[in-house]
Parts: sequence; C-alpha cells; structure tokens
Amino acid sequence: MISKTQIKLINSLSQKKYRQKHGLFIAEGIKVIKEILASSYEVTDIFSKTDVFSLLKPTNLHLVTEKELKKISKLTTPQTALALVKIPPVKKVNLSGVVVALDGVRDPGNLGTIIRLCDWFGIEHLLCSPDTVDCYNPKVVQASMGSLTRVNIHYRSLPEAIEQTALPVFGTFMEGENVYQQNLPSEGILIMGNEANGIRDDVARMVTHRLSIPQFGANGATESLNVATAAAILLSEFKRA
Amino acid sequence: MISKTQIKLINSLSQKKYRQKHGLFIAEGIKVIKEILASSYEVTDIFSKTDVFSLLKPTNLHLVTEKELKKISKLTTPQTALALVKIPPVKKVNLSGVVVALDGVRDPGNLGTIIRLCDWFGIEHLLCSPDTVDCYNPKVVQASMGSLTRVNIHYRSLPEAIEQTALPVFGTFMEGENVYQQNLPSEGILIMGNEANGIRDDVARMVTHRLSIPQFGANGATESLNVATAAAILLSEFKRA
Repeated sequence: MISKTQIKLINSLSQKKYRQKHGLFIAEGIKVIKEILASSYEVTDIFSKTDVFSLLKPTNLHLVTEKELKKISKLTTPQTALALVKIPPVKKVNLSGVVVALDGVRDPGNLGTIIRLCDWFGIEHLLCSPDTVDCYNPKVVQASMGSLTRVNIHYRSLPEAIEQTALPVFGTFMEGENVYQQNLPSEGILIMGNEANGIRDDVARMVTHRLSIPQFGANGATESLNVATAAAILLSEFKRA
Repeated sequence: MISKTQIKLINSLSQKKYRQKHGLFIAEGIKVIKEILASSYEVTDIFSKTDVFSLLKPTNLHLVTEKELKKISKLTTPQTALALVKIPPVKKVNLSGVVVALDGVRDPGNLGTIIRLCDWFGIEHLLCSPDTVDCYNPKVVQASMGSLTRVNIHYRSLPEAIEQTALPVFGTFMEGENVYQQNLPSEGILIMGNEANGIRDDVARMVTHRLSIPQFGANGATESLNVATAAAILLSEFKRA
C-alpha cells in the first residue's frame, strides 16, 4: 500500500529543491538498495513488490503492486523496488590521494558512471563544481549502481577548493603531454570538464600539468571522447603504474 | 514545413522494423548531421530551424518551426535540426587489427559510447551479436556523435564470426590475468559482455586470453565497471604500448 501523500512526496524528489527540502533521495532496484542498506546511509522506506528486504534490516517495508510502483518509479521499466534514503550530512575533509574534480558535468549518466569509476579505482574524493548535476538525481543514483555510498562527493567552487591544497593539478587539453609517457604521482587533482565546453578558463589557469590522451583513429575526425570514458582512461593511467 | 506523412514516417523510425523497412535512420543536432554530411552516408532530408545546411550540400532542406521539430524529435530537448539518413549496405570484409565484439550490449548509450571509442582508438571493425541494440537506434546515433560513419559495424553470430578468423580472442573475467601486465598484440578480438550477465558461455569458450582489470577500491564492494568504461580502459591498454 502506498498513500497519495507518499506518491506526491516521492515524485517531488525528482527535483533537487525538494530533495534538499526533505533531505531525501530515491534509489531503485534491489541491487542498488541492498548496497545502500549495507552502507552507513539511512533508508527510511522501501516500496517493493516482494518482501526480500525484510530479511535484511528492520525498515519501513511497504508491499506495493506493479501498478503502484509505476506511479512512483523514475525508470521507463520500473524495477522490483524503490527506496527513500536520507541525504547524509556533508563531511569536511582534507583532500588527499588522487582526487577527481568535475567542472560542470551535466549528464546524470556521466556523473553516475564517474562515481562508479572512482569507487573501482579507490578514489575517495570527488569534487564537483556547483553547476555539476546533483549526485542525488535519480538517474545519477541509478547509474552509480550503489557506488555513491563509497565515494565522498563535495560540491564546491573548484578554484577555491584547489587553492586550499598543495596537490598538483592535472587536466586534459588538445596540446597537452601524452598521458602514456608521464610518470604520474600517487596524489593529485584530476579535472574533467563539461561535455560540450571542456574545462573553464578560471579552472584551466590552475592546472599545473596539461595532459592529452593520444588519438589513434586514422582520419582524426573524432573530436573528443565522452567525459566518463576519458576519466576511465586517465584513472587507469594514474593507478596502473 | 513538414507534412503529416513525413511526421508519421519519422516517428516510425524509432522502431527497428520500420528503419529496416524504409532503409532510413534519424540523426539529430547540427554537429552530428555535419559529420554525416561529410561522410559517405547519404542524407535524404534535413528538417531544420535554420538554413545552416544549405551552404554545405544540396539536399532536401525543410525549414521547420520549433513546434514542428518537437513533433519529430526523439530528444527531451530537441536540437536545431533532424536529418533522415540512408542505412548503408553492409560491407563484407576480412576482420583485421583490433576488433571489438559486443555480446548482447543492450543500452543505446553504451553502444554509442563504444562506437565513439572505436573511432578514437582507430578500431575499424565492431562486431555485434544479433541481440545487441541496433546501431541505428536514435539514442545510439546521438551518443556516437557522428563516429557511426567511421566504424564498420557488423551484426553477426559471434561464435560463427570468431570461428572464421585466426585472431586471438580476449575477454575480461574476474579470475583473468592482470591486463596491466600483459604484452598485448596489435591484432585480436576483444569481447565485451552484456551489462548484467557478461559474456555468454558459448562465446566465453572461444576466448583464448582471459584478462581482468584490477580493482583498486579499498573495500572491494564494487562489482563491475560500466561496459563502455571497461572498453575504454582495455582499448587504451591495447593501443598505448
């Protein structure tokens, strides 16, 4: 059973302002919800077609019909369950290790994929410029596949955040040094730019090491890599050494 | 101006069976359309809010209003123009170099991103199992950003295609050899599996070199990388040598 008030609340959480107002976000799918239950994040309610979750943790489990689930799901094909999760307080930490910084990444799928990559490569901190898509956007949560709970995500002015560290700053530029020929350090900030416009001038000015990923295509007509695949290649280079 | 018949035709092209029936697919956005105009692909019609294309090539340019464009666009936020493009005949070729093979990749965004990656890394041939998402799906065309015209895409039974070559066959598996420690050849088939289920048994059986991408996360909770980011890391390793 699900009430009209609950449906209204859940649907409002597609928008950032209501996520912030209620301090809640949506996660869908058994796999993602299980990962969140196993983390320090607090799940307040689960709306599910099956009672698979009652075995895992005491929580407010609401058994719902397929039709009810369709009313609240943000997916084209709703999964078995949807959970409401509390947005955790922002941790204040010193940046260390390899830090990924996103300068205006707008696509939720790209951000989710980058969060999953950070988790895979053991990146603890992800810096996001204030205009980067919200990490609690339902599509980001979905694409991050539960990795969201294992990466510290900070929304801050990138120039300000960079100024406060002594870490070297890396960014990719057309005329940068071949990343395959670099001796990359174990600490540093790796900046990835916006999908269409790349890294903004005020951030680019703070880059101490300009890198490039060489292009192997015969005709050189491809202009760029997708930001998430470029991040994958760069993180692989930082960590493989 | 756009007629009702044209609107009906264009909207039918969201479905593979109508794309095959009419031999046409849709491409949206000035950047993507310009890349297609510069290729060997034949554009039959362009529906555009501006006449930017008339300077480029003689083609059927239809000036349309924003409202008309909304009726035919497959995007949430329609771009300036939409083109109808002829599906080219399938080329019969011998596979050579590094070939990427997809075993049931279902997400259009993933396929589009992989096509763009192939273009970047100079991969000429992309093999797709018959159940891989259609490369002329509007979302694939969009995500491939014009790279579609520069990669030969073959839909075939992977076991049959692999049997007909003498190329070494690579795939990633949990227990595979660390890809960072391999001497990778300049020719071979790299198999990427389905998003949820990985590589199927009948294809896995034909893999001659089992690889793995090491995980650096502290807690080892991430189960997998997104298929497009895994492809990015592996292609980077094949080509960086």
